[in-house]
Amino acid sequence: MNNNFKEYDYIRDGAAIYTRSFATIRSEADLTAFTPAEAKVVVRIIHACGMVDVVQFVQMTSDFVMSAKSALQAGKPILCDSEMVAHGITRARLPSDNEVICTLRDPRTPQIAQEIGNTRSAAALQLWGQKVDGAVVVIGNAPTALYHLLELIEQKGYRPAAIIGMPVGFVGAAESKDELATRKDLPHVIVRGRLGGSAMASATVNALASELE
Amino acid sequence: MNNNFKEYDYIRDGAAIYTRSFATIRSEADLTAFTPAEAKVVVRIIHACGMVDVVQFVQMTSDFVMSAKSALQAGKPILCDSEMVAHGITRARLPSDNEVICTLRDPRTPQIAQEIGNTRSAAALQLWGQKVDGAVVVIGNAPTALYHLLELIEQKGYRPAAIIGMPVGFVGAAESKDELATRKDLPHVIVRGRLGGSAMASATVNALASELE
Repeated sequence: MNNNFKEYDYIRDGAAIYTRSFATIRSEADLTAFTPAEAKVVVRIIHACGMVDVVQFVQMTSDFVMSAKSALQAGKPILCDSEMVAHGITRARLPSDNEVICTLRDPRTPQIAQEIGNTRSAAALQLWGQKVDGAVVVIGNAPTALYHLLELIEQKGYRPAAIIGMPVGFVGAAESKDELATRKDLPHVIVRGRLGGSAMASATVNALASELE
Repeated sequence: MNNNFKEYDYIRDGAAIYTRSFATIRSEADLTAFTPAEAKVVVRIIHACGMVDVVQFVQMTSDFVMSAKSALQAGKPILCDSEMVAHGITRARLPSDNEVICTLRDPRTPQIAQEIGNTRSAAALQLWGQKVDGAVVVIGNAPTALYHLLELIEQKGYRPAAIIGMPVGFVGAAESKDELATRKDLPHVIVRGRLGGSAMASATVNALASELE
């Protein structure tokens, strides 16, 4: 790479980039509302979206971090509503080689969607079945998936260990997360309002999966 | 699904959700700085992140939309810096069954990273080789990938048809996009500052890939 061409002046070391990023976030973000373990999650959410201000919208139950970490360490599966979420999870950080499952592209999903009169994102959850029990459920895209998760929990009696509720957008995202927020009996984290998305959702899993920052 | 359990009141029709989302975005966002074709891209970027205000940071060259669309219609590949970007691209929308390539997990990438003293995200670009010529390049994660793309363009004389420059974060994201912005000879779109990410980047491809909103 030594030649006469322009070389740009930037940090090329991945570990150094992480260190500086997290230091910047911690110097700018007001994390006083969170425990140290919770703050680690919030730092990664901020890191994923580039917005320190997102901190004001992050809300979690006091049992969320502990319950999610225990499930991951026990080898429970991680159930995701979108391929982007599933591919944002860093497999090397997972403590028990946990299964990461997304059934959106399962060939049965379109027909289930027709049958139940809902989106494919919602229909995909029906294929999770019993696996929801004790799992970490990650909704990073579709409000309909979060709504349907709440319906399945009520109808089937499933009990996830933790719910990462971060659908994004303009139709149902804020409302579905408000519904989840009323369920204090379900360990969860949300990003209130329209903000959310697969990057924040998978960053939350990555934060919980390992003590390494 | 008819039983005595609570059913939530929400829109379950995917097409209706899209229509209402885009209508909300167009009613709230000031898109006057963009041509109708450019506005379609901006609407999808807003849709991906849930933030109408992102519009003020979107900046593109006047030849970007035309150049990117022509490349997609001509069947050129889409080169992505991350798996999340690659998995956010809706294959069914692509006009020519275009190849979607991400070499981040190629087994050769870690060694190249060591050899060139850069991140794996940057090193992965070296495996694209000549494919960069005429391609649509999508950087939705790593500032180092965008910097290295500019280095490769200068050193090898590659000429992508269009660059979607949307790395996110606190170290180098703003700076690498500022560098791309100086290259008026390269058709490109950026989201200035810290904002960006795989969702906005793949949404840009999805907007360009089909006339369907």
